Amino acid sequence: MLVDHTTGDDAGVFRLDETTALVQTVDFFTPVVDDPRDFGRIAAANALSDVYAMGGRPLTALSIAAFPERDFPVEWAAAIVAGGAEKLREAGCALVGGHTVRDPEIKFGYAVTGLVHPRRILTNAGGKAGERVVLTKPLGTGVVATALKAGAAPHDVVAEATRAMATLNRVASEAALAHGVEGATDITGFGLLGHAARLARESRICIEIEAGALPILPGALDLAGRFQAGGLQANRREFEPLVDYQGRPSEPLRALLFDPQTSGGLFLLVPEAETEALLAGLPGATLVGRALPPGPKPLIVRA
Amino acid sequence: MLVDHTTGDDAGVFRLDETTALVQTVDFFTPVVDDPRDFGRIAAANALSDVYAMGGRPLTALSIAAFPERDFPVEWAAAIVAGGAEKLREAGCALVGGHTVRDPEIKFGYAVTGLVHPRRILTNAGGKAGERVVLTKPLGTGVVATALKAGAAPHDVVAEATRAMATLNRVASEAALAHGVEGATDITGFGLLGHAARLARESRICIEIEAGALPILPGALDLAGRFQAGGLQANRREFEPLVDYQGRPSEPLRALLFDPQTSGGLFLLVPEAETEALLAGLPGATLVGRALPPGPKPLIVRA
Repeated sequence: MLVDHTTGDDAGVFRLDETTALVQTVDFFTPVVDDPRDFGRIAAANALSDVYAMGGRPLTALSIAAFPERDFPVEWAAAIVAGGAEKLREAGCALVGGHTVRDPEIKFGYAVTGLVHPRRILTNAGGKAGERVVLTKPLGTGVVATALKAGAAPHDVVAEATRAMATLNRVASEAALAHGVEGATDITGFGLLGHAARLARESRICIEIEAGALPILPGALDLAGRFQAGGLQANRREFEPLVDYQGRPSEPLRALLFDPQTSGGLFLLVPEAETEALLAGLPGATLVGRALPPGPKPLIVRA
Repeated sequence: MLVDHTTGDDAGVFRLDETTALVQTVDFFTPVVDDPRDFGRIAAANALSDVYAMGGRPLTALSIAAFPERDFPVEWAAAIVAGGAEKLREAGCALVGGHTVRDPEIKFGYAVTGLVHPRRILTNAGGKAGERVVLTKPLGTGVVATALKAGAAPHDVVAEATRAMATLNRVASEAALAHGVEGATDITGFGLLGHAARLARESRICIEIEAGALPILPGALDLAGRFQAGGLQANRREFEPLVDYQGRPSEPLRALLFDPQTSGGLFLLVPEAETEALLAGLPGATLVGRALPPGPKPLIVRA
């Protein structure tokens, strides 16, 4: 095995031969949006993301479903499955099977297998001081989903968050490989700074984030003061002690640094000479910081 | 893709090159026994079985866990995971990751990836008239688990069922490949005759079972009249119309023909000339019938 979960990487990597390794991951969760087809799309984009975050090409998927026996129209199950299938097709990933159980609480996701070249794996340990930090999707999906559950998220805010969560990290991953990236992760449950901290630790660097440069979902900053998932607060307790704040970001912006993301963007450490070309070819990607030699704390946030 | 779920096969098969295909499957379920370590062992043996049923060699596994937040000692989670790990080691299968969610109802299992030679896959379509039918584990795990939930299963009956469910189908699979078997499945949720019917249909044969020859777990026949899971009755409604009974098996024995199995045995169609040698080398395997040319019904049960 080349990569296991002790490094906090996004997926396990198992070498088959000199040029081929399997990259494998599993993820499933309860609905984050109301529309079942969108939920299927998001569940697939999220599960595929772990493969993309390692520089892999998704090959096969097994669905994992828990559907209620009562008060759950069969059309909803069909729509969830169809939304997922749509994204698997977009990824060129074959559905080879799955398992469904009865459960009062809806859950859906996939176990995904991809292929990766054993010497071209993107990992938490691949970042180097001097590189630039690029984020490929806006932050705030956790805040928006929490507001949605409380009935307080405007329709267009939800629509934009849904679009972001359903977007594959495929193009971002291909761009990263094309531009010499070796250190990367995707932003999911531990939030921006939780995942940045793991990458900083494994790469033995310090990561400096420009808070004002961070891409944020429309409406998310406004909602962040009032709608924080339990995971956000847990992330903040765990990871904020690792942060050296230089300046004072607003309280809602600070919260978003720790917001758990569903199907978040890739967090890429890009060689300085490649950064401009990567950004030019990857719409939505944003330069948000840089990697420094290790310092007293693994993370710096400038505001 | 070489095999997908439309043939009712146990796992999906995806060809990588001329000599290598991935065989992949996912299964997880609620506890069938009280001891957490035994449950983990059974969950692993059950998930691995789909790979063995296709003639594959398990390579990697991703765990899938749902554990309650309350009234669930952390030692139980550790014991479930340890029991599974013990069986993965026995199978030579690496754990590369996993996903755990909070859920009031315990569930555990794995997504398993194995390797198989694309021209040596055991399938539902590989059976031929004239072959002998061999079953490698005794029937009755569904009846025993249902009785256990009702507090009515004697300790030694549960112990023997647990031992059977925790046994890997590895040796049986290797014996099948060594003796020229091409048609095979494992006996799981659809019961003996549900899985036999699928194999008969895909292989375009009739399968004749000698009811009196069937291996049955100690105590299961006695419990079968009183403890039938909902799945047993559903299987019987679906598959009994496909059966031509020749003679009258007892009512409890008829029920066991449809009993959903957890981590059941392999159901092998063995070339006649190889049958004796296979049985001699595979303790616990039993000759239970033969394959005939297609007839008016896909299944015959002789009593």
